[in-house]
Amino acid sequence: MPKISEERKAERREQILEGARRCFAEHGYEGATVARLEEATGLSRGAIFNYFDSKEDLFLELAFRDNERLVRLWLDKGWEETLRQIVDEDPDWIGVYLELSRKERTEPEFRNRHGSRTLEQLAPTLIAHVREEQERGTLRSDLPPEKIAGFVSLVANGIGLQLGSGERIRDVDTLVELVRAAIEPPTARARSGTPSRTRP
Amino acid sequence: MPKISEERKAERREQILEGARRCFAEHGYEGATVARLEEATGLSRGAIFNYFDSKEDLFLELAFRDNERLVRLWLDKGWEETLRQIVDEDPDWIGVYLELSRKERTEPEFRNRHGSRTLEQLAPTLIAHVREEQERGTLRSDLPPEKIAGFVSLVANGIGLQLGSGERIRDVDTLVELVRAAIEPPTARARSGTPSRTRP
Repeated sequence: MPKISEERKAERREQILEGARRCFAEHGYEGATVARLEEATGLSRGAIFNYFDSKEDLFLELAFRDNERLVRLWLDKGWEETLRQIVDEDPDWIGVYLELSRKERTEPEFRNRHGSRTLEQLAPTLIAHVREEQERGTLRSDLPPEKIAGFVSLVANGIGLQLGSGERIRDVDTLVELVRAAIEPPTARARSGTPSRTRP
Repeated sequence: MPKISEERKAERREQILEGARRCFAEHGYEGATVARLEEATGLSRGAIFNYFDSKEDLFLELAFRDNERLVRLWLDKGWEETLRQIVDEDPDWIGVYLELSRKERTEPEFRNRHGSRTLEQLAPTLIAHVREEQERGTLRSDLPPEKIAGFVSLVANGIGLQLGSGERIRDVDTLVELVRAAIEPPTARARSGTPSRTRP
């Protein structure tokens, strides 16, 4: 029997992650049984758990990819586009994070597994980027870059909790304008235009 | 048999709510079984459900009281003290809100019951207060009061999600300073002192 190629392996991994994301969003993390994961991915449990050790590992990979995507978006398009993207996330998928918050609060190992890869691989890049923006004068420079990134992250969590509770963020432009007033220096705000900037 | 006095009834109601809050926080909403609610309140299920129709009603009353307390705090001490108080909330209790977010997202009736009393009884008072602050010049007046209150509420939700996920809010002063920059006019900020205001 020929060995499965690396390319085919990578494809299958993506197929599993995509199906698992849909399955978690539809049924919740607890509700995503192995049978439902098989159905959603179109693969047997044997195949799925050949690629991922556990359901927890599936979630953690998906969560890391969310963070990776959002950090990249910030680097490429700025914090504003990043917040706008979060507003457009699937509330059912966001709900999975909320469902797992208790596990995160009460199980230090899960918490550590969830946070460490992001902290090690993504946070330093983001912080360096914020520092550059501070040096360019597009973000306020009277606070350490970690505080600026932390604030945007807290706002993102606020959006997440509202979405996951079924609340719509009705006026993203005003939200962005308020965050701008918090994290940009007054001069940058004056440069970047009126409060009601329209979406690009 | 003598009738139980109104005063005694009110005391018992408080006793039930207090016990239920502890019970929800300790075991989670799902984990707060009737047996555990009996233990936590020191009352029989007959007595408990004589005062409240259901576990859901218990939670909704507790949630309304949280909102009432926070709105009153805003009216008396301002938004800053309100955010500081939220930072100090019990993470296990906040976790109950996160646990119920799916129910809130997917069950319109629960969502409506959760929100309507706050919207009808508390929101108008808060909005009127924000408008007064805008007229006094202590909050920016270029946005409708609802947007200011909505932003502080979104930040509060961000704090809530972080607390409920076991994350500590390490630097509340900086958080307050960033929110201040967002919602106060520059002149009010200059009046209220340096960025690193210490807690009163």
